[in-house]
Amino acid sequence: VAEVVRAFPVVFALYPHVTQLDFTGPHEVLARLPGAQCMLASSTGGDLEADGGLVFTRVRKLADIERCELLCVPGGFGTIEAMEDQELLTQLRRLARDARYVTSVCTGALVLGAAGLLQGKRATSHWAWRDALSAFGATVDDSRVVRDGNVLTGAGVTAGIDFALTVLAEVAGDAFAQSVQLSIEYAPAPPFDSGRPELAPPAILALSQQRYERIRPARDAAVQRAAARLP
Amino acid sequence: VAEVVRAFPVVFALYPHVTQLDFTGPHEVLARLPGAQCMLASSTGGDLEADGGLVFTRVRKLADIERCELLCVPGGFGTIEAMEDQELLTQLRRLARDARYVTSVCTGALVLGAAGLLQGKRATSHWAWRDALSAFGATVDDSRVVRDGNVLTGAGVTAGIDFALTVLAEVAGDAFAQSVQLSIEYAPAPPFDSGRPELAPPAILALSQQRYERIRPARDAAVQRAAARLP
Repeated sequence: VAEVVRAFPVVFALYPHVTQLDFTGPHEVLARLPGAQCMLASSTGGDLEADGGLVFTRVRKLADIERCELLCVPGGFGTIEAMEDQELLTQLRRLARDARYVTSVCTGALVLGAAGLLQGKRATSHWAWRDALSAFGATVDDSRVVRDGNVLTGAGVTAGIDFALTVLAEVAGDAFAQSVQLSIEYAPAPPFDSGRPELAPPAILALSQQRYERIRPARDAAVQRAAARLP
Repeated sequence: VAEVVRAFPVVFALYPHVTQLDFTGPHEVLARLPGAQCMLASSTGGDLEADGGLVFTRVRKLADIERCELLCVPGGFGTIEAMEDQELLTQLRRLARDARYVTSVCTGALVLGAAGLLQGKRATSHWAWRDALSAFGATVDDSRVVRDGNVLTGAGVTAGIDFALTVLAEVAGDAFAQSVQLSIEYAPAPPFDSGRPELAPPAILALSQQRYERIRPARDAAVQRAAARLP
């Protein structure tokens, strides 16, 4: 119980065109931890518009945050630019040094990679992007939540909820995590079984892959530039 | 395809102390529909702070929105006050008249009920609150997503994602909904199986019920006052 009520600052490190469910899911779970202080932060602070049009306000500047227990980088199409935001990468490296957990959801793993935080680590990302992690010295793992030391990475978007419950169980115990699962009625019942490439109907997977192929050149160029800057 | 690209305005009707995942989940899914215009709106407009501390900005005034295809009321502890916000209830009744879908997630169903929009309908809500719906003339159903005519209600918090995929399939077809499920990698794998009262360990359920018992008197008083105002 002492563990539970200790201050537990959580920083979600954001950037333009982030996918909001990547962090709103974990935020909903982690904010229920007594002692949690969940903060949104970005390179510039201020308002931040996520993909889909949701606008968050009172976003802090990463440079103004002294330290956190858990650092989480969500994903989104803005990842391609975020991998080249040197202020973001500098602040991620600084906060990661003292954090108990260094984490990502979805393509946020590519930003962790660009910051040099995945070297020699097993990690995952969105199914259509995870192959890119090897350029950052990571070993790609296709599990939904991957832990290697204090680095936890989640797969695409909705994996953030599973990731957050996993963290909560570690920080506050299984019983507390189970009580939060009950309070958010997390007994998922998707109307289809199409949530992973191995499960989706082949025609749907093919269409989806076509869309990702169109952004692959820009993505790969950004990954190569970021990887070249690593020590 | 013509169906898909038609304008599809979606209004999430918010109020203070809303549970953000109740609407950020469906927002992430529905914003991917070509033609979707997802709007946050409240009685007053402006900034809105959700439970857990996330602050949304550029929230519209409900009275300024002419009509929508889908009206969605999310839940949260603020439901108790929202049931007595006459401006909110008036605007919900007005928007519901022309909406193709009148919907809620979690305890948002109690606000729909207070607006008189669940009379004679089957509906669901968060497992700890759904019994209250009968006061509004609804028949309680414990399914995760319940449809009765054009009224769709979802169970607690995370049921909003399943609800939104159900709507998406109706509006844009199964294949499109499956492609969105794949893009958000929605193949949930909770680390525990504690998401419904029937599944949770008895000690966890008992603790959770104790917490809900503490707010039951305030909740029931608000329900009774709201129900007494219905025609």
